[in-house]
Amino acid sequence: MDKANIILDAMKTLLEQDDGASCSVSDIAKKAGIGKGSIYYYFKSKDEIFDALVEREYHQIIENCRVLMNRSYADAAQKFALLFRSYRSSTSLLAMDHYLHQQQNAAIHQKSLAKILSSLSPIVADIIRQGVEEKSFRCEKPQETAEIILSVYCFLYDPGIFKWTPEQLKEKASALATLLENGLSAAKGSFQFLYQT
Amino acid sequence: MDKANIILDAMKTLLEQDDGASCSVSDIAKKAGIGKGSIYYYFKSKDEIFDALVEREYHQIIENCRVLMNRSYADAAQKFALLFRSYRSSTSLLAMDHYLHQQQNAAIHQKSLAKILSSLSPIVADIIRQGVEEKSFRCEKPQETAEIILSVYCFLYDPGIFKWTPEQLKEKASALATLLENGLSAAKGSFQFLYQT
Repeated sequence: MDKANIILDAMKTLLEQDDGASCSVSDIAKKAGIGKGSIYYYFKSKDEIFDALVEREYHQIIENCRVLMNRSYADAAQKFALLFRSYRSSTSLLAMDHYLHQQQNAAIHQKSLAKILSSLSPIVADIIRQGVEEKSFRCEKPQETAEIILSVYCFLYDPGIFKWTPEQLKEKASALATLLENGLSAAKGSFQFLYQT
Repeated sequence: MDKANIILDAMKTLLEQDDGASCSVSDIAKKAGIGKGSIYYYFKSKDEIFDALVEREYHQIIENCRVLMNRSYADAAQKFALLFRSYRSSTSLLAMDHYLHQQQNAAIHQKSLAKILSSLSPIVADIIRQGVEEKSFRCEKPQETAEIILSVYCFLYDPGIFKWTPEQLKEKASALATLLENGLSAAKGSFQFLYQT
């Protein structure tokens, strides 16, 4: 593994231990077994290391989703549920989330949300297009509709932006399911997976 | 006017002049005609002044929207268009937006977006409820549906998060209009105002 990734792994491990509350560039260097001076050859600051770590982890999750979708022979409604579950289960493991939601990391957080929307929306758009071909959905603008759906996930559902109770989140998921079911002229229950746990 | 508001007005004027690029607490004090020491009696830092300014300006815009909706006897579809136009025209005048979208202000920016969604969603929900009573909309969860609509405006449409061209924005608005028209079982063209300028 290259040194940049060893540094990212070191920060990741530290975040898993104490939410990064007190981890410094020196701590990261020590964990990585790399001199502090060498770290600055790769990254200018702790912020830059964290930014790169967030980018790498989300890139990996989204790549996994893409591979899963390309391999799957499911129909569009099933693919939607599969993507949703796969994304949700991989992000629930992210140790860096608590740190990402701290106020001083708001810029990196916002950038990561925008990145998730931009990377996932073509995958969701492809599922909608497949649904249109299968005549299970009606939609004239798959890409833009995908972005609308993902806006809800990236913004309204973000635990760093809003503090909803599990019941409130379920109500929102159910409202989105109904809006999509009617909005895409999909069969009743097509988006049940959004609120069923 | 109380001193806190005089201080906020001073910062607002400075932001109108140079996007706040170089305004310091001293500049704000000078503009407000208040000693720098007195400023710290009201606010701990320039960030706190800006935070309060953003809060005050958006609060005013949302209050104006609320008054407008309460005074109006229009039907739900017309009220939707009225609210949309009123909100859009008042925010287009905000001099602080450029500064709000700078990276170091990401935390205040995020907080303001969450505040807009929380304050506007009950107003939008009331319009949806009116539409349900008038039998022009079908919707079981007006509050949650309002939050979904506003997520798109607060996140996907935010020029500090995404850089879309006017054409791209129009495509997104048109996709949202179709999704809402079908999603709320509303009459064809009910949400045309979203993409007609």
